[in-house]
Amino acid sequence: MRIWVINPNTTRAMTDMIAHCGRAVAGPEVIITGITSEIGPESIESHYDEALSVPGVLQAVERGERTGVDGYVIACFGDPGVDAAREVATGPVIGIAEAAMQAASHLGTGFSIVTTLARTIGQSAHLAERYGMQRFCRGIHACEIPVLELDTDPNARKVIAEACREAIEVDRSDAVVLGCAGMADMCRDLSAELGVPVVDGVSAATLAVQSLVTMGLRTSKRGEYAPPPVKRYSPGAPPAG
Amino acid sequence: MRIWVINPNTTRAMTDMIAHCGRAVAGPEVIITGITSEIGPESIESHYDEALSVPGVLQAVERGERTGVDGYVIACFGDPGVDAAREVATGPVIGIAEAAMQAASHLGTGFSIVTTLARTIGQSAHLAERYGMQRFCRGIHACEIPVLELDTDPNARKVIAEACREAIEVDRSDAVVLGCAGMADMCRDLSAELGVPVVDGVSAATLAVQSLVTMGLRTSKRGEYAPPPVKRYSPGAPPAG
Amino acid sequence: MRIWVINPNTTRAMTDMIAHCGRAVAGPEVIITGITSEIGPESIESHYDEALSVPGVLQAVERGERTGVDGYVIACFGDPGVDAAREVATGPVIGIAEAAMQAASHLGTGFSIVTTLARTIGQSAHLAERYGMQRFCRGIHACEIPVLELDTDPNARKVIAEACREAIEVDRSDAVVLGCAGMADMCRDLSAELGVPVVDGVSAATLAVQSLVTMGLRTSKRGEYAPPPVKRYSPGAPPAG
Amino acid sequence: MRIWVINPNTTRAMTDMIAHCGRAVAGPEVIITGITSEIGPESIESHYDEALSVPGVLQAVERGERTGVDGYVIACFGDPGVDAAREVATGPVIGIAEAAMQAASHLGTGFSIVTTLARTIGQSAHLAERYGMQRFCRGIHACEIPVLELDTDPNARKVIAEACREAIEVDRSDAVVLGCAGMADMCRDLSAELGVPVVDGVSAATLAVQSLVTMGLRTSKRGEYAPPPVKRYSPGAPPAG
Amino acid sequence: MRIWVINPNTTRAMTDMIAHCGRAVAGPEVIITGITSEIGPESIESHYDEALSVPGVLQAVERGERTGVDGYVIACFGDPGVDAAREVATGPVIGIAEAAMQAASHLGTGFSIVTTLARTIGQSAHLAERYGMQRFCRGIHACEIPVLELDTDPNARKVIAEACREAIEVDRSDAVVLGCAGMADMCRDLSAELGVPVVDGVSAATLAVQSLVTMGLRTSKRGEYAPPPVKRYSPGAPPAG
Amino acid sequence: MRIWVINPNTTRAMTDMIAHCGRAVAGPEVIITGITSEIGPESIESHYDEALSVPGVLQAVERGERTGVDGYVIACFGDPGVDAAREVATGPVIGIAEAAMQAASHLGTGFSIVTTLARTIGQSAHLAERYGMQRFCRGIHACEIPVLELDTDPNARKVIAEACREAIEVDRSDAVVLGCAGMADMCRDLSAELGVPVVDGVSAATLAVQSLVTMGLRTSKRGEYAPPPVKRYSPGAPPAG
Repeated sequence: MRIWVINPNTTRAMTDMIAHCGRAVAGPEVIITGITSEIGPESIESHYDEALSVPGVLQAVERGERTGVDGYVIACFGDPGVDAAREVATGPVIGIAEAAMQAASHLGTGFSIVTTLARTIGQSAHLAERYGMQRFCRGIHACEIPVLELDTDPNARKVIAEACREAIEVDRSDAVVLGCAGMADMCRDLSAELGVPVVDGVSAATLAVQSLVTMGLRTSKRGEYAPPPVKRYSPGAPPAG
Repeated sequence: MRIWVINPNTTRAMTDMIAHCGRAVAGPEVIITGITSEIGPESIESHYDEALSVPGVLQAVERGERTGVDGYVIACFGDPGVDAAREVATGPVIGIAEAAMQAASHLGTGFSIVTTLARTIGQSAHLAERYGMQRFCRGIHACEIPVLELDTDPNARKVIAEACREAIEVDRSDAVVLGCAGMADMCRDLSAELGVPVVDGVSAATLAVQSLVTMGLRTSKRGEYAPPPVKRYSPGAPPAG
Repeated sequence: MRIWVINPNTTRAMTDMIAHCGRAVAGPEVIITGITSEIGPESIESHYDEALSVPGVLQAVERGERTGVDGYVIACFGDPGVDAAREVATGPVIGIAEAAMQAASHLGTGFSIVTTLARTIGQSAHLAERYGMQRFCRGIHACEIPVLELDTDPNARKVIAEACREAIEVDRSDAVVLGCAGMADMCRDLSAELGVPVVDGVSAATLAVQSLVTMGLRTSKRGEYAPPPVKRYSPGAPPAG
Repeated sequence: MRIWVINPNTTRAMTDMIAHCGRAVAGPEVIITGITSEIGPESIESHYDEALSVPGVLQAVERGERTGVDGYVIACFGDPGVDAAREVATGPVIGIAEAAMQAASHLGTGFSIVTTLARTIGQSAHLAERYGMQRFCRGIHACEIPVLELDTDPNARKVIAEACREAIEVDRSDAVVLGCAGMADMCRDLSAELGVPVVDGVSAATLAVQSLVTMGLRTSKRGEYAPPPVKRYSPGAPPAG
Repeated sequence: MRIWVINPNTTRAMTDMIAHCGRAVAGPEVIITGITSEIGPESIESHYDEALSVPGVLQAVERGERTGVDGYVIACFGDPGVDAAREVATGPVIGIAEAAMQAASHLGTGFSIVTTLARTIGQSAHLAERYGMQRFCRGIHACEIPVLELDTDPNARKVIAEACREAIEVDRSDAVVLGCAGMADMCRDLSAELGVPVVDGVSAATLAVQSLVTMGLRTSKRGEYAPPPVKRYSPGAPPAG
Repeated sequence: MRIWVINPNTTRAMTDMIAHCGRAVAGPEVIITGITSEIGPESIESHYDEALSVPGVLQAVERGERTGVDGYVIACFGDPGVDAAREVATGPVIGIAEAAMQAASHLGTGFSIVTTLARTIGQSAHLAERYGMQRFCRGIHACEIPVLELDTDPNARKVIAEACREAIEVDRSDAVVLGCAGMADMCRDLSAELGVPVVDGVSAATLAVQSLVTMGLRTSKRGEYAPPPVKRYSPGAPPAG
């Protein structure tokens, strides 16, 4: 089974870390490949960034389809392009926000999301609604560390742990969802430190894709996710052309 | 990793079939054990049946805890006792309605549920709401075959296939969720026949529990799922005593 | 007219108090009988307790049916077993959470619930949603007094009054609902003290059942509340057998 | 205990019938008085009619307050002026739509409303939402008989029975709510004929008010229902002046 | 194009101010006329006031219809009588709460409402729900200045600015809606001072009506807003008679 | 005042028609310019098309900002890129779905949407929810005419009229919203033919932008719509660079 974990931003170091997190949980029969988007911004912290990351995500999925990839993880907490990618893909496509929130919903009656910049809170709230997870999501909190500093800021881990602790207290939550792929490698430590389940979407989405493929389930091609109609493009080809 | 797939009714043949379905998808490191409830009704087709099945489910989970079971599947589509079981269990507990609906939500924009008797439609609708899946669930349809005849009625497969076909048409759905553990072994064939993903909750819940355990995630003991306070019982002991 | 006020826990002193509250408001033609559950926990403070109290509630209702009882109050704020009891009963069955919230909804634009332990807040919230009362319920507050100490803790009344006062302030509520049958006898005094209506579910449910019976209205047997199908039970009989 | 059943339209024959229905269910200690509005339209079948009926309702409540009335029923299914009346009244004020829907919510898992003209369906839907009863209301059906012909049209009973039967079938409902005070006297017969509970709001609201008064509960004066600020009126006095 | 801006209270000074605000934004082809209600209270600060203002609003609209007015603004933030007025009017009728909230929904992801007395908060919340604006409305705040003192209280502007500032902070809002026609002339200054869009409903509703008329769109007469059925009135005529 | 009406697809004929519709309603002081996207698909009929149209929309808005454009209409019924465009724009940005639904909500109690291909129904439903218009939207219907054939198919007008007629009947709607910019020029005729308001989003959005600019209201830069953080892009520049 081959699963591609697509990093929608163009920062390769993040792809490596994400792929590592996917591999750490995937079954022995699964080949996890980290894919860095070739078009778009170096990190995603606005609707603008997110919109400009989608063509690269779609290009990656189209490339994957040509080589028979079984399923895809979209590894940015805004789940950019998930609907369009499902139109293109034969197998399942899952975003990390989607998978993380659903996983957390099994472990307690309510979770908090701890994310990077406050300006992305709206998108997380939108996704919670879109996935039916609003009833479990008790609050969304920003630690105000930019995505690319998660790795370099020596205080990042401590600031995030503090934000988690406060979120649990204020929201009376039972669990935490980390709202950025760039935080994927902090989950186990934070779980131990905080005494509540801390969910990383990259692992959760990897296992959710693996589970669907194991069950022989693919994206339905009957309705809204049927292959998109063929079109002429300006200046000449879609990004994957 | 040890996962118990608990059949909340007392019919052993159903337990065997369910455990088989769980085993068919579980990873090589996972030991799946089918557990038949020792107290309660032979099948679950009313709120009354469901209520009387819960003590047996809890007894099973308490037994599992004493032997270090890693996680539990509650294999009846009413997800009986899932909240109480989470209070008792250390590891994750997932109901098959919960897992099936979430799996289906990844594969299309809307699914139909095909269940046994019409009188159980309300409970499925209630669970769709409780899990946030109302926005994906486009309709719930009964085939009016009692649970224990799924196995013996020679027309059952055909009637269910027909109910699925009609559900897809009427609800304009992209996928189907089978609303009874007793239908678990029909999924692959129905998927092939109908041309849309048909989801079985037993497989989905088994893999969801396996995924959570793989990620090191357990039921949160911070809030509502903390161990229940110790009590005196009449006539003397709780069912697991 | 005969109404049974069923105490789902096994503590007789609480049954006596509850029956007294029901009698204090019932019409002259109504015979109120307090019924103590014969199976289950001495008090209900978790999903586990609640699940194990339901067989006793159903046993009581089945006993009542054999003697022609006209209607039933389920006198625990989790309304345990209300759906299953309606399948069994000919007359109306009303839970005290249901009745209290509906009564409060007539008296102001929003109420607060003051309950016992914080771990039961989730169940109250769930019931508020199930009964459509979410739009009136502005907050749920715990006084952290266990059910069986409501009667014995000399500070209970004062602590509850304080919790009510704070709830009204914080939630900007117009009314209070007391979230435990064990608080039923405190309502009138608290109403006077706080200057807002304080609603006791036992009185409210007793009068709601009495009202339905007076109007000749019984539980509908057309749909989900039709009598449950007959089943074989392990180890041999349902609790009422 | 004195309860006024206010007919918001100016047709006295309807007041008499309504008061009769209230008296038929009220307790022996209750004096029911039917009050005909002195200002406004002869029947209420539009937002316009409803708006122009409210001053008469308020005038009646103000009159009642001067003579110490204990509670009020607003006996038109649009529940006209219920919020304003609660500001004026000391005791409880309940509309018949409110009471009927809540009563029906105890008897089954879903009800249908059968009303007069299709143009009033929107107001019933609005009230179902306002009272949290949307989750129980499965459909609203018009029999297209104008209010004042309910009494004179020899086919009215038959047409309404037919509309109820169809509503139950189409909506898969367990109960029916009659959507007009002018249908109050048909409930018992229709219940018997249709085999499901048929709820009349006039009886239900009368008993709901009686119940609240019995419990010593009055309209909260803390928040939105505090007495309205005193004002100057053009042409000189409010309707009750 | 002729648009009437109806002041539902009887205070002429407020009408003048409102009409001025409408004129300041209307197109060169539009004649704005301020209309003072001839029946009802001098200001609207309760459900009671609102109910008693509606007959005057309807009288004004009926008068307008006789002279071929193209559209109407109802210039009180409770939007009194908007449904009934639409039954009477041929052209569009828009309330200022409706228009203000919709305008604000284009400018940010969430707004706060700053209104006069706390007792009107419920009505604003109700309208936010009715217009689908609940998802944008993050909070409703009272400055506790009565309507008729907005003009005379020398501190009013400062108190309102302070309430806006606090609302933005507490609710994390992007925009403010002023919740009273009497605040219409403060918007531009407050926008400049606070650095976020501050929306006045009078301007917004005037332009919304103007836009609909420009597009040739009128109130639909097909369904609920068809002309109301003709009725007999007590004491003899509807207010417009 | 300068307003750009942006056609998110690359078909110039459609831009011309759309700009014409905008000009037909705009005030005398307004200069309407039709802008054809320079990157992306020739028409938008899938999530994939929509995703690939967004960079072109953003490029257009960035170009507009450099020349001081006052506001933008996004003239495709999927409202592609509206959030990202608001981050970039100083003035207001409004999508045609948003504007059309809000306009229709003033004219009746419920509308139907008539769109092109059934596969776009999901996106319209999503936007109805996002804008709070779900409560007004009674149904979404496809005429199954591809966008680029609206202009060339000689039966298009007739098929659309038929779809509108059926939608009104089935949904019991008071108004129709046309779900494609390519239908903008059909509104007036259809309104006349069907006897209900038929709303075109291009006109509605043009006037909504014009209204906001007239009131001096701009996109809030306080929260989620603040300018996006500056980023490095691969292969070197964002589309607008």
